[in-house]
Amino acid sequence: MKAAKNAARARGERTRQAILKTAVDIASVEGLEGLTIGRLAAKLSLSKSGLFAHFGSKEDLQLATVDAARAIFIREVIRPTFEAARGLPCLWTLCDVWLAYVQRGVFRGGCFFAAAAAEFDSRPGPVRDRVAEIMREWLSTLRRAIVDAQQALQLANDIDPAQLAFEINSLEMGANWAFQLHGDKQAFKRARDSILERLQRGSTELGSTLLPSLKGTRNRKKR
Amino acid sequence: MKAAKNAARARGERTRQAILKTAVDIASVEGLEGLTIGRLAAKLSLSKSGLFAHFGSKEDLQLATVDAARAIFIREVIRPTFEAARGLPCLWTLCDVWLAYVQRGVFRGGCFFAAAAAEFDSRPGPVRDRVAEIMREWLSTLRRAIVDAQQALQLANDIDPAQLAFEINSLEMGANWAFQLHGDKQAFKRARDSILERLQRGSTELGSTLLPSLKGTRNRKKR
Repeated sequence: MKAAKNAARARGERTRQAILKTAVDIASVEGLEGLTIGRLAAKLSLSKSGLFAHFGSKEDLQLATVDAARAIFIREVIRPTFEAARGLPCLWTLCDVWLAYVQRGVFRGGCFFAAAAAEFDSRPGPVRDRVAEIMREWLSTLRRAIVDAQQALQLANDIDPAQLAFEINSLEMGANWAFQLHGDKQAFKRARDSILERLQRGSTELGSTLLPSLKGTRNRKKR
Repeated sequence: MKAAKNAARARGERTRQAILKTAVDIASVEGLEGLTIGRLAAKLSLSKSGLFAHFGSKEDLQLATVDAARAIFIREVIRPTFEAARGLPCLWTLCDVWLAYVQRGVFRGGCFFAAAAAEFDSRPGPVRDRVAEIMREWLSTLRRAIVDAQQALQLANDIDPAQLAFEINSLEMGANWAFQLHGDKQAFKRARDSILERLQRGSTELGSTLLPSLKGTRNRKKR
């Protein structure tokens, strides 16, 4: 009896994951508001009532979709930094991998959270709150890496971590935006060069040996 | 007869302008997709058929709304720069006034075009094309001001105008985004400081006398 129950639960969880995968894909291009239970049911050849069993409301579905996108973001952007040394190498990896994540098209509509933030910033409620929370998480991940680099004497102490995190995030968002709107791939190189130049300028002698050279990035991107 | 026709035409034009004013307001908060003829008719207490006489389709209405927003942007951001001297003062005024335009809430949902770009970047068609065109106009306005400043020997010649325009635009978008999502007013100061620091660093001796000092901005914003 217990085994049968567990098997049913596992099956339910697999269905839920399959639904969320499709939901993330739709929302990434058409927005979280385009994500209706009817639309999703048609796409997955499931009944509406079957979908309702997994997600009680459109808002529940939107929230679960945002968290599914967050799990993908963690896998694609945060995980790879675990291999980088703490401090400046980790900070640069965060920046570099973030740009690659948009460029590779992990989400079809570019950065999932940039799109969700733009869509929900004027719509108060749990979805907006969750998106804002995830963006704060990201900014504080950047800030922590900056502080680590300062404590390791790799980055100048007079740099305001919140200011630098704002600048890095803005340049990344700018690249995402230029790519989504104008298909401008050069924007990734622009953002990369600008962030690297900023980090080089702020780094100590020790720190600058831990960063790729600006010329190196330029050559790498031209290939 | 002719006078009566002209009066009718003027009346029609006034109605059209009133409709577009409301349309810009709705679209600024809820997006251009939220802009249905039915919704707008209800808000303005006009008949749907009356609205159809002015705008044949939802897409025509969206396009007219985008252009009405562009006219507001020109009045609020481009016009004030006519009073600034050519070159670096004009460039700095463009940056400064743009940030003020978002901070003052000219559009209720922040920068109209940032929101429209995020909404339409995955939806090919005339609306997306028009928004992309307006954003290119803005980037080339920034680029032209940078080139002017270089020709006036105010800004170093080795600065790539497209790169600097990308950086300025990204920092502005970053401020807009932080304010819309987190209500973070400090983001305007962050963007202002970062842009001014970048311009100071790139400017010639002549150029740097034409910019406010970084300290000045900091004090001004603290008040």
